[in-house]
Amino acid sequence: MAGNTILLAAVSVLSACQQSYFAFRVGRARFKYKVKPPAVTGSLEFERVFRAQQNCVEFYPIFLITLWMAGWYFNQVAAACLGLVYMYSRQKYFWGYSEAAEKRVSGFLLSLGTLALLWVLSALGIANSFLDEYLDFHAAKNLRRYF
Amino acid sequence: MAGNTILLAAVSVLSACQQSYFAFRVGRARFKYKVKPPAVTGSLEFERVFRAQQNCVEFYPIFLITLWMAGWYFNQVAAACLGLVYMYSRQKYFWGYSEAAEKRVSGFLLSLGTLALLWVLSALGIANSFLDEYLDFHAAKNLRRYF
Amino acid sequence: MAGNTILLAAVSVLSACQQSYFAFRVGRARFKYKVKPPAVTGSLEFERVFRAQQNCVEFYPIFLITLWMAGWYFNQVAAACLGLVYMYSRQKYFWGYSEAAEKRVSGFLLSLGTLALLWVLSALGIANSFLDEYLDFHAAKNLRRYF
Repeated sequence: MAGNTILLAAVSVLSACQQSYFAFRVGRARFKYKVKPPAVTGSLEFERVFRAQQNCVEFYPIFLITLWMAGWYFNQVAAACLGLVYMYSRQKYFWGYSEAAEKRVSGFLLSLGTLALLWVLSALGIANSFLDEYLDFHAAKNLRRYF
Repeated sequence: MAGNTILLAAVSVLSACQQSYFAFRVGRARFKYKVKPPAVTGSLEFERVFRAQQNCVEFYPIFLITLWMAGWYFNQVAAACLGLVYMYSRQKYFWGYSEAAEKRVSGFLLSLGTLALLWVLSALGIANSFLDEYLDFHAAKNLRRYF
Repeated sequence: MAGNTILLAAVSVLSACQQSYFAFRVGRARFKYKVKPPAVTGSLEFERVFRAQQNCVEFYPIFLITLWMAGWYFNQVAAACLGLVYMYSRQKYFWGYSEAAEKRVSGFLLSLGTLALLWVLSALGIANSFLDEYLDFHAAKNLRRYF
């Protein structure tokens, strides 16, 4: 088990670090723009940083579950690489959004695309395992015969 | 491993899709009611859609962890079925809340009930494994003797 | 598998219960301070409870992933104990923040410290497995020789 998921584990732990970094940046923005807790409004600059982090938080469990499912049921290396691309896109999104609301778009679209790919890989892998187990139909093996 | 969790994996991937759908609806509501990022207030309609999604986001990790624990330690099929009921209740909640604040209640209560059941199954399964392993007391086996 | 993760499973299920408790407290505060959904502002007392819960929600997936990675790749008992400390710190944070914004600090710092430790254990465990598997270098075994 441990050997088959090591790349997924490494990407997960790195992304946990990235999420903490986003949270830290919100704390710093709170201090810089003098937004006293529990308020989350009052400064447009702070609001942008805050919304950027909130959006990353919303998508984080979706990312983790599709990363692991794609890695377990499809291919670990492919899932881990997509995981790194996702992390890069989120970094781009966060930095862009922190500067201006319009600059968030490119990073966001890249993150959505990567997530969609991870989702497709998960669904394919799960469907293949499903056919294997319950219908005794070896889709992946049959496909490989033609190549 | 892969074979024992395939239903959990399928439900997880489906629910990730549902969460993305909720996020997409927030984006559309932002556009429709002209709420410019990073603002999240200004239109009551938008706020309802946004709060509905936020509530789903808050409960999503709780759902995932109880789903997997109930599936691993109690019974996979039971956990996956409850997972589908949870997804249905969240859909009902989201659609209801989007229309009017009062219409969110029935979906929300159903989702809480399903989550409580998943939690109870997890706790039972874990307690049983715990007794098995550390105290060498086979609760499930002893119970089965009477049926 | 099931036997090696039972403490992690128990801590996860307990923490899911704690998260639900936080959400329940927000619901009660909504009722008590008469903040009608979908609004989340209007009463400073409600806002504090709400922000406290939101902060716990933000960190919950980070906590879960580092807990499991530290437990799988480093040591289950150490990870589970740190998980309990984290839960205690979050409880302290939530209660403190509910009373006054200044009282949130000590619980928050403890939770960050625990999370950092879990993260370090995960990273060490993963790095060690990585060296073992890909470079055939047995770091943990070599270290143990000196003690």
